[in-house]
Amino acid sequence: MFTPSTMGYDRAITIFSPDGKLYQVEYAFEAVRRGWTTIAARGKGGVVLAVEKRKVTPLLDLLSIEKIFKIDDHIGMTFAGLAADGRILIDYARLLAIQHKLTYDEPISVEVLTKKICDIKQSYTQHAGVRPFGVSLLIGGVDDSSPRLFMTEPSGQFMGYYAIAIGSGGQLANEFLEKNYSYDLSLDDLLILLLKALARVIEGELTPSLVEVAVIPVETGVLRKLTPEEIEAFLKKI
Amino acid sequence: MFTPSTMGYDRAITIFSPDGKLYQVEYAFEAVRRGWTTIAARGKGGVVLAVEKRKVTPLLDLLSIEKIFKIDDHIGMTFAGLAADGRILIDYARLLAIQHKLTYDEPISVEVLTKKICDIKQSYTQHAGVRPFGVSLLIGGVDDSSPRLFMTEPSGQFMGYYAIAIGSGGQLANEFLEKNYSYDLSLDDLLILLLKALARVIEGELTPSLVEVAVIPVETGVLRKLTPEEIEAFLKKI
Amino acid sequence: MFTPSTMGYDRAITIFSPDGKLYQVEYAFEAVRRGWTTIAARGKGGVVLAVEKRKVTPLLDLLSIEKIFKIDDHIGMTFAGLAADGRILIDYARLLAIQHKLTYDEPISVEVLTKKICDIKQSYTQHAGVRPFGVSLLIGGVDDSSPRLFMTEPSGQFMGYYAIAIGSGGQLANEFLEKNYSYDLSLDDLLILLLKALARVIEGELTPSLVEVAVIPVETGVLRKLTPEEIEAFLKKI
Amino acid sequence: MFTPSTMGYDRAITIFSPDGKLYQVEYAFEAVRRGWTTIAARGKGGVVLAVEKRKVTPLLDLLSIEKIFKIDDHIGMTFAGLAADGRILIDYARLLAIQHKLTYDEPISVEVLTKKICDIKQSYTQHAGVRPFGVSLLIGGVDDSSPRLFMTEPSGQFMGYYAIAIGSGGQLANEFLEKNYSYDLSLDDLLILLLKALARVIEGELTPSLVEVAVIPVETGVLRKLTPEEIEAFLKKI
Amino acid sequence: MFTPSTMGYDRAITIFSPDGKLYQVEYAFEAVRRGWTTIAARGKGGVVLAVEKRKVTPLLDLLSIEKIFKIDDHIGMTFAGLAADGRILIDYARLLAIQHKLTYDEPISVEVLTKKICDIKQSYTQHAGVRPFGVSLLIGGVDDSSPRLFMTEPSGQFMGYYAIAIGSGGQLANEFLEKNYSYDLSLDDLLILLLKALARVIEGELTPSLVEVAVIPVETGVLRKLTPEEIEAFLKKI
Amino acid sequence: MFTPSTMGYDRAITIFSPDGKLYQVEYAFEAVRRGWTTIAARGKGGVVLAVEKRKVTPLLDLLSIEKIFKIDDHIGMTFAGLAADGRILIDYARLLAIQHKLTYDEPISVEVLTKKICDIKQSYTQHAGVRPFGVSLLIGGVDDSSPRLFMTEPSGQFMGYYAIAIGSGGQLANEFLEKNYSYDLSLDDLLILLLKALARVIEGELTPSLVEVAVIPVETGVLRKLTPEEIEAFLKKI
Amino acid sequence: MFTPSTMGYDRAITIFSPDGKLYQVEYAFEAVRRGWTTIAARGKGGVVLAVEKRKVTPLLDLLSIEKIFKIDDHIGMTFAGLAADGRILIDYARLLAIQHKLTYDEPISVEVLTKKICDIKQSYTQHAGVRPFGVSLLIGGVDDSSPRLFMTEPSGQFMGYYAIAIGSGGQLANEFLEKNYSYDLSLDDLLILLLKALARVIEGELTPSLVEVAVIPVETGVLRKLTPEEIEAFLKKI
Repeated sequence: MFTPSTMGYDRAITIFSPDGKLYQVEYAFEAVRRGWTTIAARGKGGVVLAVEKRKVTPLLDLLSIEKIFKIDDHIGMTFAGLAADGRILIDYARLLAIQHKLTYDEPISVEVLTKKICDIKQSYTQHAGVRPFGVSLLIGGVDDSSPRLFMTEPSGQFMGYYAIAIGSGGQLANEFLEKNYSYDLSLDDLLILLLKALARVIEGELTPSLVEVAVIPVETGVLRKLTPEEIEAFLKKI
Repeated sequence: MFTPSTMGYDRAITIFSPDGKLYQVEYAFEAVRRGWTTIAARGKGGVVLAVEKRKVTPLLDLLSIEKIFKIDDHIGMTFAGLAADGRILIDYARLLAIQHKLTYDEPISVEVLTKKICDIKQSYTQHAGVRPFGVSLLIGGVDDSSPRLFMTEPSGQFMGYYAIAIGSGGQLANEFLEKNYSYDLSLDDLLILLLKALARVIEGELTPSLVEVAVIPVETGVLRKLTPEEIEAFLKKI
Repeated sequence: MFTPSTMGYDRAITIFSPDGKLYQVEYAFEAVRRGWTTIAARGKGGVVLAVEKRKVTPLLDLLSIEKIFKIDDHIGMTFAGLAADGRILIDYARLLAIQHKLTYDEPISVEVLTKKICDIKQSYTQHAGVRPFGVSLLIGGVDDSSPRLFMTEPSGQFMGYYAIAIGSGGQLANEFLEKNYSYDLSLDDLLILLLKALARVIEGELTPSLVEVAVIPVETGVLRKLTPEEIEAFLKKI
Repeated sequence: MFTPSTMGYDRAITIFSPDGKLYQVEYAFEAVRRGWTTIAARGKGGVVLAVEKRKVTPLLDLLSIEKIFKIDDHIGMTFAGLAADGRILIDYARLLAIQHKLTYDEPISVEVLTKKICDIKQSYTQHAGVRPFGVSLLIGGVDDSSPRLFMTEPSGQFMGYYAIAIGSGGQLANEFLEKNYSYDLSLDDLLILLLKALARVIEGELTPSLVEVAVIPVETGVLRKLTPEEIEAFLKKI
Repeated sequence: MFTPSTMGYDRAITIFSPDGKLYQVEYAFEAVRRGWTTIAARGKGGVVLAVEKRKVTPLLDLLSIEKIFKIDDHIGMTFAGLAADGRILIDYARLLAIQHKLTYDEPISVEVLTKKICDIKQSYTQHAGVRPFGVSLLIGGVDDSSPRLFMTEPSGQFMGYYAIAIGSGGQLANEFLEKNYSYDLSLDDLLILLLKALARVIEGELTPSLVEVAVIPVETGVLRKLTPEEIEAFLKKI
Repeated sequence: MFTPSTMGYDRAITIFSPDGKLYQVEYAFEAVRRGWTTIAARGKGGVVLAVEKRKVTPLLDLLSIEKIFKIDDHIGMTFAGLAADGRILIDYARLLAIQHKLTYDEPISVEVLTKKICDIKQSYTQHAGVRPFGVSLLIGGVDDSSPRLFMTEPSGQFMGYYAIAIGSGGQLANEFLEKNYSYDLSLDDLLILLLKALARVIEGELTPSLVEVAVIPVETGVLRKLTPEEIEAFLKKI
Repeated sequence: MFTPSTMGYDRAITIFSPDGKLYQVEYAFEAVRRGWTTIAARGKGGVVLAVEKRKVTPLLDLLSIEKIFKIDDHIGMTFAGLAADGRILIDYARLLAIQHKLTYDEPISVEVLTKKICDIKQSYTQHAGVRPFGVSLLIGGVDDSSPRLFMTEPSGQFMGYYAIAIGSGGQLANEFLEKNYSYDLSLDDLLILLLKALARVIEGELTPSLVEVAVIPVETGVLRKLTPEEIEAFLKKI
């Protein structure tokens, strides 16, 4: 019996298989599924982003690892998958945001930024001599007092979400979110919900050093990362 | 026995097989056949475009997903297949429309726009280092008071239609249309016909949030998207 | 036993097989053989081009499908094979015709145009990174009161003909033409001959909507497409 | 047992096989061997070129097929092999001839032209991304009152000949020439000799429409094509 | 059974395997694991870098081999893996440091330098026509009186560490470090700790000529390489 | 058992085999070994070059085939192997000689010219997209009254020789030369020696038309080709 | 069982094998191991370079073969492996030396030159479309009165040595050197030591014509090649 693996549709540049799939893109998604769990949600109070950090070795300096990136005052970005690939797209995003501000004298909207990043991703799935990006991004922000949240795939496709988790604990976390999420939760309650979801899917106990959290409240429209002390306080409420 | 799959005509850049087929193009069409059902028709009253949306996960924000795009006031475009590929062609179409307006001081015709988009598609089937676009587009509009509707294939071929459905429910919807379509239907009746066709091919019940609808009436010659309330009203008439 | 299919001479860029053949070019010809039947002839009265149209689906708008193209006032072009490939060559031809007129202040001759188009075709058979064009063109016109007619192959070779049919019904139509063609037929009789040939090779009855016809009379030297009413009148004479 | 066919030396870009051969070049020569018979000779009176034409189908217009090309007043060129490839080299030759005349204010010599054409041919055998030219050219002319004749191979090699035939009837025609050729034959007798050779190798009877003939007499040093009437007269003498 | 080795995902340009891995990158890491043991740590007193040297042959001049490189006054870099690859990245680092100083009139920070080097590394994992760099770098330095230490992978990923060893003795050395490391060790004690770790993993006895050591004390913020005499003195304390 | 032929080291671009060989280069040498016998020697009186010509077919004009080329007054070049490849290098050599004369106002030395030609040859063995040159060149000349002689290989390597034969009769001719060569032979005796060597290795009798001979006497330092009459006279002395 | 040879890691462009090796680089080293024996040493008195020459055929002119190259007054270079590859790097070295002198108005140091040459070598191991250089270089010289000696590998790695032999007799010669080398040997004694080492590894007797020798004494800092008479005198002392 022939399976994709034995037939070679998945081994060269990104080409179609007989069932209309781009296997290199599907495999890049697998790199996402192996990544650290990343989670985000938006509610009436704003957007929350939370990311698992893993103490891979005892002498690793977790503080040196940044997983949530401020793109512009009002936009935050995080990712699951190949860290080096993610960093490249973060750099593109910051460049796009500043170019937009300089050109139009107003901040870039979350959706426009997401689309431009996804155009880059798409072009890496259609042209030879490159491989797709092995990351999914969560892009959250506040536009005109509205909280926005998008998830992008290695294919360059993106969709808006109320709440979404990706990475190795993504499926479990999503099931939890689907049961407990409500748009009317306060920003603090939303944050607690995400930490509860994370706590369920990581190995061992969730401590402040094992999570990075950022919020973009609707009132300020400005991304703020939580201090370990603030995270500690929230973790106690779980 | 040798089948195309075992002989390798379908695995490298887009080349001919002994029976004169371009398999990468055929497989790209398969990506179209797996897409969300997309449907359009034209009648004496104008053009209607309607697209299925799927609630893939409960926390997906269907409102954030746009599937029908205004290219110029008088032209709308939608697609079935790889969403990221479709987006790239939508961008090209908008650029072409505005370039035409600036160069000739008149709006681009639906057919000229369709041809230019298809020239891009064709070139991705004849040159190495790229793969064909995995989308079929439905391009509808009103030129000089005449409703126009074209469907484009991944090969770059296009034809005009009275009514046409593509995507996973395409075949069933087309059979329904062939039995019930008439050019003399009013724009409202045409819209109801398309919603009936969609209702037949999607899983579960058709609700306003699961469909996006746009009309280009002959009188105004301007694309207008229907609000959920309007869709609701039409759905009740089914 | 080794056949071309099992030996790989036909699978990469266009290269020679041990018997001196270019298989990608032969396979492109197969795409021509699967195309809609296309037919043309020249006689003392001028040139006639006629093309079959297929009602692939009931809601297809056959009027939207143009298969005979005016390149310049005195030259018409049609093709069998991949429609998108054909369109690209039509565009080249129109560009070449207008460039010639602007440069030399006289219309391009049918043979010069044919040769330039075939030089493009040939270069797609000798260089890597592209595939041959999957179309044969019929190029007819009137130069200095003389009717001219050429058929071009995917290889870039072309020859002049008195009458020639290509596409899926080509062989049968050619046999009919060989028995009945005469250079001294009037333009109307020539047209009737071609319609008779087409009627023999298409499935079902030949109706005005299933055929596109153009004539370039020697007197005017200007291509004119027949209206459905005119075609109807000729069909009655069969 | 391994043969070249099973070992792959002949399937990719033009590379050496263990026995020091370039198989793509050898296979291109096979395309020459399948071509229409082409023949040329030089004698004290000048150069004669003669080419077989085949009535492939009854409605083919043999007059539209030109196989002998005037490159400059004093040089003619013909070929056996892929017609489209030959045409490209004919164009190069004409360009080279006119460039030479403009640069040096004197006509190009037959040998210099042959060498330049062969440099183009050679480069298509040493670089990737192209295939060799599938034609052998016969290049004849009169330089400073001396008749010259060269045959070029797909490899880019060329040699001078007194008389030479190539194409499908080449071997038989050459055997005939070797027995009957003499440098002291008059131009008319040389022409008759070539027609006799052609008559022996073509299928059916040799008629004026099945052969194209050109002469470059030493006295005038100008290529002249024979009219069908002149050919008819010569054929009667056979 | 299929293993990665038999399925070919690891043999061409850097592409994804079905489990979302980039095998060329994993194999480049293997080159790191075969390298000479390299070790670094940071503590309250500053940063220490220490590298094993191997007397491969008796007439090798170990003094001629430099393994720790001063990038700027306050930054040192060393590596395990392919020496020639490492040298290329050292050159890039020096260039980046001096460009930063010239552009911003202040020294580059350790993290910014690390990120820029890793962007180069990442691009060698996503584009065809190159292979990944077969080295991991240890980049240590003192920014604004804070000791910093990063380890970079062939993938372009980097993380901060308190102490880390790479190369053939890396795993063993890391286990030793995890048991004995403390941030509060003085710079001298940290240095002794690293030498103890190295002594455990190299073959034979550790002598001054078999190790290269550099320190960047917090007080001076300037990298200084230890003389053989200084190393000798420290080795006596083990 | 695996032989180079079955393992593929010799089939793609020029790469190393496990035994450190470049098979494409070795196979190019095989093309040399199949070439016409070419022979050269230098002695106190100057340099002699002699080349076999083969009457491949009776109507071949041997006079039209030039195998010894004057590069500059004092340098001659000949080759064995692919004639078209050799011609390309002859052209390069002439260009290099004239550029040298124009730049430095003195003739190029034989060794400098040889080195520059071999640099071209080497680059065709190290870069993709080309194949090595399938020729060995013999380059002889007189510099400052000293006779010089070099043989170049397809690899780009060259060495100086007193006497050397290459091509199909090379090995036999070399054995003859090793027994009979002396540096003190007069130029005439050297010439006779080479003709004797050639006579031994060619099929049939050696006649003036089957050999091309050139001498570069030390006194004049100018290459001169022998007339058939002169060759005839020398042949009588054998 | 799978060996590298059967798994293909060694056949395409230079890529990593699962054990972190670059096989094309390893095979290039094999070309070095098949080369003529080359040997060098440095001592208190300066640097000595000595190279074996092989009388491959009796009529070879060994004097025409230069194997030791003066790069600048104070630097000499020699190599083992593919001669044509070595020549290319010699040319680069000379160019780099003169560019350095012109730019900085002081001679290039031996180590800087070695590093720059090795950067070229490295880049041929990381980029597609080229193969690694099949040579190891010995680069010796005197900087500021200090003798320096480096050996470079096909990988682009280099190390300093007191004495080192490469090529087919390298291993044996190195064992001899390890037993007998002393830094305090006078330059003459060092030279005798190298000749003894060479005598041990070559076939037959060592004569002045079978060896090339150069010294760079510390006092003069200028490379000088020994005359055959000087070599003769030293050989007598063995």
